[in-house]
Amino acid sequence: MGVVPSTLAARSVDHDSGDRYATATSDPLETEKLLRDTADTLVKYLTSSNDVSAPVVKLSSPDSMASEFAAVGVPLELRDGEGPASGPELLTALETTLDLCVRTSHPFFLNQLYAGADRAGVAADWAVVAANTNVHTYEVAPVFTMVEQKVLQKLARVIGGRFQAASDGLFVPGGSIANTYAMHLARHRADSKANTRGMMGGPQLVAFTSEHAHYSYKKAAMLMGLGSDNLVAVACDAAGAMKPDALRSAMQKARVSGKIPFFVGATAGTTVTGAFDPFEALANEAEAEHAWLHVDGAWGGAALLSPTARIELMGGSARADSVAWNAHKLMGMPLQCSAFITAHLGALKECNATRAACLFQPDKLYGEYDMGDKTIQCGRRADAFKLWLAWKAVGDAGWAKRVDHAIKLAAHFESRIAGSEGAFRLAMPRNYANVCFWYVPPALHGSGDPAAYSAEDWEVLHAAAPALKAVMQKEGLAMIGFQPLMGLPNFFRIVFPSCFGTSIADIDLLLERIQVIGDAHYAN
Amino acid sequence: MGVVPSTLAARSVDHDSGDRYATATSDPLETEKLLRDTADTLVKYLTSSNDVSAPVVKLSSPDSMASEFAAVGVPLELRDGEGPASGPELLTALETTLDLCVRTSHPFFLNQLYAGADRAGVAADWAVVAANTNVHTYEVAPVFTMVEQKVLQKLARVIGGRFQAASDGLFVPGGSIANTYAMHLARHRADSKANTRGMMGGPQLVAFTSEHAHYSYKKAAMLMGLGSDNLVAVACDAAGAMKPDALRSAMQKARVSGKIPFFVGATAGTTVTGAFDPFEALANEAEAEHAWLHVDGAWGGAALLSPTARIELMGGSARADSVAWNAHKLMGMPLQCSAFITAHLGALKECNATRAACLFQPDKLYGEYDMGDKTIQCGRRADAFKLWLAWKAVGDAGWAKRVDHAIKLAAHFESRIAGSEGAFRLAMPRNYANVCFWYVPPALHGSGDPAAYSAEDWEVLHAAAPALKAVMQKEGLAMIGFQPLMGLPNFFRIVFPSCFGTSIADIDLLLERIQVIGDAHYAN
Repeated sequence: MGVVPSTLAARSVDHDSGDRYATATSDPLETEKLLRDTADTLVKYLTSSNDVSAPVVKLSSPDSMASEFAAVGVPLELRDGEGPASGPELLTALETTLDLCVRTSHPFFLNQLYAGADRAGVAADWAVVAANTNVHTYEVAPVFTMVEQKVLQKLARVIGGRFQAASDGLFVPGGSIANTYAMHLARHRADSKANTRGMMGGPQLVAFTSEHAHYSYKKAAMLMGLGSDNLVAVACDAAGAMKPDALRSAMQKARVSGKIPFFVGATAGTTVTGAFDPFEALANEAEAEHAWLHVDGAWGGAALLSPTARIELMGGSARADSVAWNAHKLMGMPLQCSAFITAHLGALKECNATRAACLFQPDKLYGEYDMGDKTIQCGRRADAFKLWLAWKAVGDAGWAKRVDHAIKLAAHFESRIAGSEGAFRLAMPRNYANVCFWYVPPALHGSGDPAAYSAEDWEVLHAAAPALKAVMQKEGLAMIGFQPLMGLPNFFRIVFPSCFGTSIADIDLLLERIQVIGDAHYAN
Repeated sequence: MGVVPSTLAARSVDHDSGDRYATATSDPLETEKLLRDTADTLVKYLTSSNDVSAPVVKLSSPDSMASEFAAVGVPLELRDGEGPASGPELLTALETTLDLCVRTSHPFFLNQLYAGADRAGVAADWAVVAANTNVHTYEVAPVFTMVEQKVLQKLARVIGGRFQAASDGLFVPGGSIANTYAMHLARHRADSKANTRGMMGGPQLVAFTSEHAHYSYKKAAMLMGLGSDNLVAVACDAAGAMKPDALRSAMQKARVSGKIPFFVGATAGTTVTGAFDPFEALANEAEAEHAWLHVDGAWGGAALLSPTARIELMGGSARADSVAWNAHKLMGMPLQCSAFITAHLGALKECNATRAACLFQPDKLYGEYDMGDKTIQCGRRADAFKLWLAWKAVGDAGWAKRVDHAIKLAAHFESRIAGSEGAFRLAMPRNYANVCFWYVPPALHGSGDPAAYSAEDWEVLHAAAPALKAVMQKEGLAMIGFQPLMGLPNFFRIVFPSCFGTSIADIDLLLERIQVIGDAHYAN
């Protein structure tokens, strides 16, 4: 091995850099100012965002939004002959954007399964942006590659059971893609020729999920050439959890018609009702059919972090073949931060590798640590890093407290609804951190159970949630999702992903707000 | 419509917030300090990162990296009973991470098709992290939704031709996923029942790409149940561009054997050689077979931004059915920023929609602007926003200058290699911003064309690039990729994605470095 002259490494920059291409913001001082001003604006935004007296959102129509941007001199449109804008104009554009964004860190943004971002996660994700590299090879992302391994190993240990003996995984862009990986690996195990031959002429495979499972299973079946006809929706109980006996008979029925059950897509925390499938029983059924059992824990996987919730909700999940887990949901990481973890070491590479010579050279340094050939992507963001830093910040005990607190908030909300004497009504008992409820218009207070409403009353109640939500959005008072389900009229689904920014007192205030809004709406 | 009491919106926070869950960093002052210190560290990192005298990388083995983290008190491992770490410990972890990361903004990071991030893009992406929302519905991402539409419309206008009359699109997590969307839409057009029935029992579809096309086409064929056997690699010319007559005969051959050619995956800027397929001729062939023509412009799409390059390289690309374009490559956006654009308005939703009731409620405000049901994801990052802000900053003329500058740097590099009298040798003529070349060890200076080397000389040259690269990495002097291709021994492929940080003088210095390293290596 040769020696590099020491003068070379230490060589000073004596060349003319006059021809370095100048961007509109490339004056070093102006560049530094833009970044510093942006950081300053964002820190203020984040540190003030959990003030309940501030609006959650200033809802604009697309037209009024366009007017607001035009008014500050930075039109939304990218015109022909666009730019360049000055540093102050760019900052104004950023401030206007933040002003018109939904404040997802607000304690009353309870509309989605994600909300306010953990501050250590934000700091780490800013660093990921600045470092700007792909986690496909070790040589361009040494730290992020090792960090991803460490986080995946930790998640596997938290899942426990067979995942402690062997595991493999990846951070992927969202839970839908994680569920797609699961179905892809399952198909590869059931029909190892599908990757080369295609599904034409292969066995008639069939997959199973519950009728409450996330729609990404259906999108995956469509994308993968399996077809949505070959994805069976298994019946659920009243809470929204898959019935094991219904799964068994669905699989038997498929067998009888010559099809091969290869995949059971279970759910930990359904989107609307927050139900957890009975994993122990589903594992028995899946094993009997040699089908791959996947647990979509995008929302509910976090229950594993609480010593009590993991026993109550996640029992048997460690018998799965794979798990999806979105740390950007109940763990509060900035979007996106989704882990796919399988108990089959090597399965990802066996299914996905193509050994591209331009990236995965056998004769380079540390190539054995490259993660890129496990993926269906090529470049991939270092999403694991934010969870790593946040885990250092929060700690195992901290995560347990957060999960328990979210469930406690939901339980409190449920008890307030149950005790509201007519103004509110539970659509079903709470599961996990999800509460489904109605605001009941005064005229319907005596109408009893909405499931037995007259068609006329049904329509009145069905219209209430959209109407109240529209007022809440326009006034910026709160955001809570609603939807119809199981034949019921529109009901609100409240969830508590931003548990570290919301208190019991906040919830009492929120309920008061909803009631005032509703009563005012129906009084006019 | 009711009226909300004005006292409600303005209500002050008089409730007890004592039970708000405290994270390890949730002391407001400590949180603010962590974010401010992080921003300060990152701004320094970014504003100093284009100093050529600084190392590109401090390459560590996984073991020595683990030791460095342990030495500063923040082990890489996430142990059982982990955390909580203090604010200063978190900052130390961030600093150590940056110290051991590859500096992709360094002028001599010329290893991948991406490099240093544009500063307006960084500012915008930091805002995306802080705003923390999904671009699936307008109600949670009003600004990001409209911005994405504006950027996609601008890109469509830049592509021109039929894309000006009608277009549709999405920002997706990477070019591989963009190519997968293209194949999925093409299949849906060719066999509208594939989404429901699956590929079993359907027509025998077959897709075509060139032998130099990106491996993501193969991964997509595997994932989609088409099978890699049904993806034909069409022969290329010496530059690496697909031969139209070879495509025609491959499609005819498939027809004769009862298969249906449904997809032609062309490439604008191949990964290694930077070749552009002849789109005009390929469009003729694809149209004759009613096949979908997709242009993978992940790397080369940016040529459309230069009035000269678009004519020389991209002619006919506007006849395609869809285009993939990674703004995180030659446009310098922080990873990831990938657009998928199709000339078929409505095609994305027709192919992918499942109308999930929990997100896409018909009775909510502005639901007609929701983009989520076009995707194979559910949640999706607001990657368009950084390109929007950067476009405002750089402007149409600025992009043209950047692209022309990248090509100018490559042309200068090529001329220096060609004039090097033995020490270096071109592996092929330059295409676009890619130059493929060898450092030739002194003992081989008289050996002539490597394509005609003896087996022994071939092995010596084959070993040179990995050896020199290892020295460059260990000393932190530069990073340039290498690979074998077309039966040639390992050659370097240099690319100039970070054109706004690299000058002609930098390149001369870099070549000097490589020669000194190589000569020292072979002198020992």
